[in-house]
Amino acid sequence: MNAPQAVPRAVRSDLRRQQVLDAAAECFRQYGFHGASIARISKVAGMSPGHIYHFFENKEAIIAAIVARKVEQSAELAERINAQEDVFEALMDCVEWGFNEKTDPEFAALWLEVLAEAARNPQIALIVQDADRQTRDRLQAIEESARKARSIRSGVDKAAANEVIMALFEGLANRVVQHPEMDREEVVKVLRVAARAILEA
Amino acid sequence: MNAPQAVPRAVRSDLRRQQVLDAAAECFRQYGFHGASIARISKVAGMSPGHIYHFFENKEAIIAAIVARKVEQSAELAERINAQEDVFEALMDCVEWGFNEKTDPEFAALWLEVLAEAARNPQIALIVQDADRQTRDRLQAIEESARKARSIRSGVDKAAANEVIMALFEGLANRVVQHPEMDREEVVKVLRVAARAILEA
Repeated sequence: MNAPQAVPRAVRSDLRRQQVLDAAAECFRQYGFHGASIARISKVAGMSPGHIYHFFENKEAIIAAIVARKVEQSAELAERINAQEDVFEALMDCVEWGFNEKTDPEFAALWLEVLAEAARNPQIALIVQDADRQTRDRLQAIEESARKARSIRSGVDKAAANEVIMALFEGLANRVVQHPEMDREEVVKVLRVAARAILEA
Repeated sequence: MNAPQAVPRAVRSDLRRQQVLDAAAECFRQYGFHGASIARISKVAGMSPGHIYHFFENKEAIIAAIVARKVEQSAELAERINAQEDVFEALMDCVEWGFNEKTDPEFAALWLEVLAEAARNPQIALIVQDADRQTRDRLQAIEESARKARSIRSGVDKAAANEVIMALFEGLANRVVQHPEMDREEVVKVLRVAARAILEA
């Protein structure tokens, strides 16, 4: 009887919260934002609707938490890249990781659903736009460090270059839905060329 | 009383069909694929559900027709590009057009919804994958003509280069939802640099 008590309350609560997020993500992917009722999410999470409401006020709050988790992960990655001696090389080394993340069918299904909902739901739009601002600023700063590491003097607008790099990777999620059997290895090679060309533009 | 009769039956029927597609597109954008019931579509189209079923068996058939219309439009554009003397330049001239198409909020909302649905609905997945095969093959052929027009001998896999160009443009729809206030003019400049670098890779 003592073992479960040994896990601190805060840790247990955090685990339950993550459990809700995972269940909700699964439901959003499978049924869409509107089809994913709290009843459905609670069933997949294996807890009562009351429990879900204890953590999140509504589905918008769940989306906000899922997006925040994504922002945190990208912040951790940014920290690791910035800690490298050659930031340019470190960034190039992330191309394949970025490809794998965006073309993961589970990621693509969830993210496309979030964006489709954001396109019609102003509350979700604000959530993704606020998260994007953070990720975008962070990535642009890394790109600037990468250029410095190689003494590259780019002639284009830096924010626009960052925007194009983000479009390039985000579009991979759209591509994997339409062309799942693409030649992953060859695409990663071209992605490297394109990313480098944009950084050096 | 004679004027309406003067419009040939086939033309009238085609107009009604387009009217259904426009209404359905509007409903898919606004309510999502599942929220867009035939009842809702018929209300927006201003015709009876029976009329809708006369043209389309179900919502999947409507999506198929919307996607087919998109394929037709891209075929017409491809024909115009191929008719130009300098296909490379003609393709580069399309960069801004492509940017405008993908970042049109109505296009982005509809297309993200179609892809989100395709990620969970095998029937829709087949529709978009079949359409993509046609668009992809056509675009790759144009890129090949563009390279020939400039005697460019690309060292990368041509299908992969095409895939990356498609990701680049398709990702713009995702970007406009997350960053609607991007600097359009500067982004188009960088897009041109990136597209050129991929073609010349």
